[in-house]
Amino acid sequence: MYSYEALPVAEWFRRNRELAGFHNSTRALYQTIRELVENSLDATETYGILPTIFLRVAVEDEQKSWVSVYAEDNGIGIPGNEIPNVFGRVFYSSKYRIKQHRGVFGLGLKMVVLYAQSTTNKPVLVRSATLKSDKIYEYQIMIDTNANSPIILDRREYPNKYRWHGTAVKVVLEGNWLGAKKRIEDYLRRTAIIAPYAEIVFKGPDMDLWLKRRTTKLPPAPKEGLPHPKSVDVDTIKQMLLDSRGMTLLEFLTENFDAVGEGTAKAFLEWAGFNPNAKATALTPEELVRLVEKMKQYEGWRRPRADWLSPVGGELLEIGAKAILGAEAVFAVTRKPESYGGHPFIVEAAVAWGGQIPPSDKPLLLRYANKIPLLYDEGADVARKVVDEFHWDNYKVKFPAPLAVIIHVCSTKIPYASAGKEAIAEVAEIEKEMRLALRDAAKKLRLYLSRKEKEMELFNKYITFAKYVDEIA
Amino acid sequence: MYSYEALPVAEWFRRNRELAGFHNSTRALYQTIRELVENSLDATETYGILPTIFLRVAVEDEQKSWVSVYAEDNGIGIPGNEIPNVFGRVFYSSKYRIKQHRGVFGLGLKMVVLYAQSTTNKPVLVRSATLKSDKIYEYQIMIDTNANSPIILDRREYPNKYRWHGTAVKVVLEGNWLGAKKRIEDYLRRTAIIAPYAEIVFKGPDMDLWLKRRTTKLPPAPKEGLPHPKSVDVDTIKQMLLDSRGMTLLEFLTENFDAVGEGTAKAFLEWAGFNPNAKATALTPEELVRLVEKMKQYEGWRRPRADWLSPVGGELLEIGAKAILGAEAVFAVTRKPESYGGHPFIVEAAVAWGGQIPPSDKPLLLRYANKIPLLYDEGADVARKVVDEFHWDNYKVKFPAPLAVIIHVCSTKIPYASAGKEAIAEVAEIEKEMRLALRDAAKKLRLYLSRKEKEMELFNKYITFAKYVDEIA
Ligand SMILES: Nc1ncnc2c1ncn2[C@@H]1O[C@H](COP(=O)(O)OP(=O)(O)O)[C@@H](O)[C@H]1O
Ligand SMILES: Nc1ncnc2c1ncn2[C@@H]1O[C@H](COP(=O)(O)OP(=O)(O)O)[C@@H](O)[C@H]1O
Ligand SMILES: [Mg+2]
Ligand SMILES: [Mg+2]
Ligand SMILES: [Mg+2]
Repeated sequence: MYSYEALPVAEWFRRNRELAGFHNSTRALYQTIRELVENSLDATETYGILPTIFLRVAVEDEQKSWVSVYAEDNGIGIPGNEIPNVFGRVFYSSKYRIKQHRGVFGLGLKMVVLYAQSTTNKPVLVRSATLKSDKIYEYQIMIDTNANSPIILDRREYPNKYRWHGTAVKVVLEGNWLGAKKRIEDYLRRTAIIAPYAEIVFKGPDMDLWLKRRTTKLPPAPKEGLPHPKSVDVDTIKQMLLDSRGMTLLEFLTENFDAVGEGTAKAFLEWAGFNPNAKATALTPEELVRLVEKMKQYEGWRRPRADWLSPVGGELLEIGAKAILGAEAVFAVTRKPESYGGHPFIVEAAVAWGGQIPPSDKPLLLRYANKIPLLYDEGADVARKVVDEFHWDNYKVKFPAPLAVIIHVCSTKIPYASAGKEAIAEVAEIEKEMRLALRDAAKKLRLYLSRKEKEMELFNKYITFAKYVDEIA
Repeated sequence: MYSYEALPVAEWFRRNRELAGFHNSTRALYQTIRELVENSLDATETYGILPTIFLRVAVEDEQKSWVSVYAEDNGIGIPGNEIPNVFGRVFYSSKYRIKQHRGVFGLGLKMVVLYAQSTTNKPVLVRSATLKSDKIYEYQIMIDTNANSPIILDRREYPNKYRWHGTAVKVVLEGNWLGAKKRIEDYLRRTAIIAPYAEIVFKGPDMDLWLKRRTTKLPPAPKEGLPHPKSVDVDTIKQMLLDSRGMTLLEFLTENFDAVGEGTAKAFLEWAGFNPNAKATALTPEELVRLVEKMKQYEGWRRPRADWLSPVGGELLEIGAKAILGAEAVFAVTRKPESYGGHPFIVEAAVAWGGQIPPSDKPLLLRYANKIPLLYDEGADVARKVVDEFHWDNYKVKFPAPLAVIIHVCSTKIPYASAGKEAIAEVAEIEKEMRLALRDAAKKLRLYLSRKEKEMELFNKYITFAKYVDEIA
């Protein structure tokens, strides 16, 4: 009755893998591809490299439904000594900074390795070289779930004659290829829409895809930032204070926060009733809490900066949507930066019309978060709600219509509803921006549709006239 | 560029608290109540105690929107020396056994404490006494997120003169009472529907609820079980082998698994091509993998046992739905046990008709998992899908109708879509059982509605006749 037990973190995630999207052999295969592709894109475009990604899914043992997944990229690579932790230690990551990334949980690779070893007992194979490295490192790694640490089964070094850089990963897992095939195709196509500067080659048992690079223009890389004063809580401040020996409150604020210069900091501290020259570490616990409260309430801060974000931009959205959806026309909008709880975000929306888009009773919705296509749990996503409640009849759209809607949110902190990263939780500020972005894009569509209507009328008149001329001739 | 960092588990959850349902001050307040109530119910009914739960939400500081939450139960309590870990160590739990529980992640209390300290910097206050304990223990606890361990700020002991047993918890957190009020009310009422044997008293700033005990009948308590051979993976077997020095394969299987007697084990091992008398620990890694594969494929196992489950039962569902929904009639069905991936589960459904249920265009859906009401993320829940696709017209239901549907899944492993426990992921076996349960309940409703129709006809005839009699009189 009274018997308690602590689970080590890796073991906990292994047992609760559906929380990270690894529900069953279909979802797990799809999620494996996602995690690998997203890491590859983060390791390339974020550093100004045009992504080239090779993917291969092969059946290893039909009867047991074992498949292998291979992913290779031309990214910045991983230093040899970091490879074991990056693959074998839950919550080990390079992406905990304030900056837009696809990855954010430090969990993806580890879930892939845990799922693989739980189902096939095989290690992950990794090969990687960093930029300008004269060596290529190769590892075979499993995870000790009780210790949350990597088990290195094999380690090799090769000379890097051609200065290759990038990362190649191979895993063998129980996977349902036929079940996952359609989703994987959707996922890759949708990735190509939002990242038309990526080249993605996919080879599967009975499906090959070659998603060609449509442009060599990369979106500007996001910068790395400091937290906004509205986004911190007491525990975060406490952590910061550990590194601030000797600083005054004024110094502490200007050094550690975004959008806080000396003027702003002084004005705030005065308003909040703190002495700017008091030592930061001398704050009592009560004062600390009051400081955070006041930082949240203060209306005088500048908005969080948006150069930590990397929106796609209208031009790239149009290229992507035209190339992959085969739309006749695409109208894209990138809204101005907004923020929620101190986290900056930008909403982009595009409406794609006609061409190869099949007419249907409601718009096809393509959801994205930090350039990741979201395919599952649409019903839980705030974007679905916004699109469902939208008054299309005000914009000359009558269903059935050949209409697709793209909604993209980028932020330093996406409020995902689960660690599987499949739906954006309801946040009032984000919902509002989605509504406005959709409206702006739909207005452009309306203009286009009325112009078409007029042209059609003219054309019809001309036809009638021509017929008439013919007749009297 | 190449700079990596490992986050300690408590710190990771503190930063990603929306993954556990603590999105903002509204959700966090609701989730806090949930976690405390669910722990209280687990600590009472699972051990044959009729639950009595006191809850109080009070505004502590209007301007800062600080509220306190107090919860007290008459459960089995927590041993004094375990209290710090239970509140202060992420993944510390007594519920990792194979048995139906509301809690299952070992995370709930810790998220409450983390959220409270992040927003108000105040410790949790706990008072608890176990069954027959002659002492009551009191603690004030915070969490050291870097060490994932409790910080004990205060510790007291009192004599337990009246042999009180149970647990009382108080936290102060940033919470939006007005935002959360309606959900909290819904949550408590829905809890009372599924647990009519509980007495719940709630006092809030401007809302008091007294949900009285409607019956003293408790559902049979779940037993604790062993894993089913179809539910294990390679890593689990490896763990088991550590405790099986000297056992033969035959012994290993019969000792460690549910539904595996000697006969079954022999038949299986023969079919799978293993020697029953070989030492279990002598398996090579390849053989181990093959063993697990075969265990999954084998069709000869008995089904997982269902006495680890504790369904509510038709009688209690009717009592609950009539008392709380004020329905005119309730038809409930408890299906036979089924299983998915080696985990047993039971689906129960009830349809409630008329009375105080307001007519509407689609049925009101009340979702439950292991007796927990699920209120958010309905769009992502497989139950919503099943109810939406149901052909009500086959069952004499014409909308608008005064109809509510209750769907309850209980299992040793609920496939939640997120750690906030708000939606059940799509699992084909569960979806099918939901469909069948709903059909069975709807059939009963149809019978009732036709009988009513006939009575109505008779009544109308009588009226006409009476009128006629009147007229000719
Ligand atoms: N293809 C890759 N190229 C370079 N670095 C990578 C690659 N894949 C993973 N990494 C590194 O491994 C870390 C852990 O990856 P992962 O477990 O997926 O978590 P996350 O992406 O959320 O950080 C990343 O933060 C990154 O530094
Ligand atoms: N009200 C309570 N009465 C008795 N034991 C409790 C109570 N609340 C929590 N516990 C114990 O604390 C443990 C941890 O609780 P929690 O963090 O909510 O995780 P979980 O409920 O998932 O196990 C529980 O497993 C239980 O043993
Ligand atoms: Mg990643
Ligand atoms: Mg953050
Ligand atoms: Mg709990």
